[in-house]
Amino acid sequence: MIPNEKEWSKSEKEIARQAYKAAYNRECKAILEDVRKMAAETRDSTGLWKIHNYLTKKRKETDEKYDYRYSVLRFVFARLICEGWMHQEDIKGISEDKLQEIREAAEFYAG
Amino acid sequence: MIPNEKEWSKSEKEIARQAYKAAYNRECKAILEDVRKMAAETRDSTGLWKIHNYLTKKRKETDEKYDYRYSVLRFVFARLICEGWMHQEDIKGISEDKLQEIREAAEFYAG
Repeated sequence: MIPNEKEWSKSEKEIARQAYKAAYNRECKAILEDVRKMAAETRDSTGLWKIHNYLTKKRKETDEKYDYRYSVLRFVFARLICEGWMHQEDIKGISEDKLQEIREAAEFYAG
Repeated sequence: MIPNEKEWSKSEKEIARQAYKAAYNRECKAILEDVRKMAAETRDSTGLWKIHNYLTKKRKETDEKYDYRYSVLRFVFARLICEGWMHQEDIKGISEDKLQEIREAAEFYAG
């Protein structure tokens, strides 16, 4: 069965949306910290364009990673948990079967 | 007559190369200062990606502007002077006819 929007209750959707936003904000904050550090340490044009390359890479990565389609949301969350951007407690309130799938997928990502 | 490399003496080329490098470094330093300021003032993801958009725009602009072909160098220098990245004293030692052409082109850029 392909997971879809109908499997998510209204309250689960609200929890998922908040958790997703929080993870995105955490990751963007970390990228911003990297940019500040790089900009503070850079003295020449090579360093300047390294910041640009870094941001281009991160923008592509986050655009691909943060995908809010319900059909893939369990895997997105698993990856975010695995990478440390989402915390288990952020998604408390989501049904146990979904949490179980997310945990299993997170273990898969963690290798 | 199309201006070309042969019109530039060895010492003129050395002056031109140094002036060009100095202008490029000044402009990159100013961009870096903008990035530092933007990064310090930014609090959210919107601001983060604004830094990326700004750098993408500046990289494209500088890649187009800094063109060291001798056939276009007078116009490149005129533009850099007009925009404040190159100073008149940086190109002291280049032949008077070239300087005159650069000044005339700079006036054209200044509108």
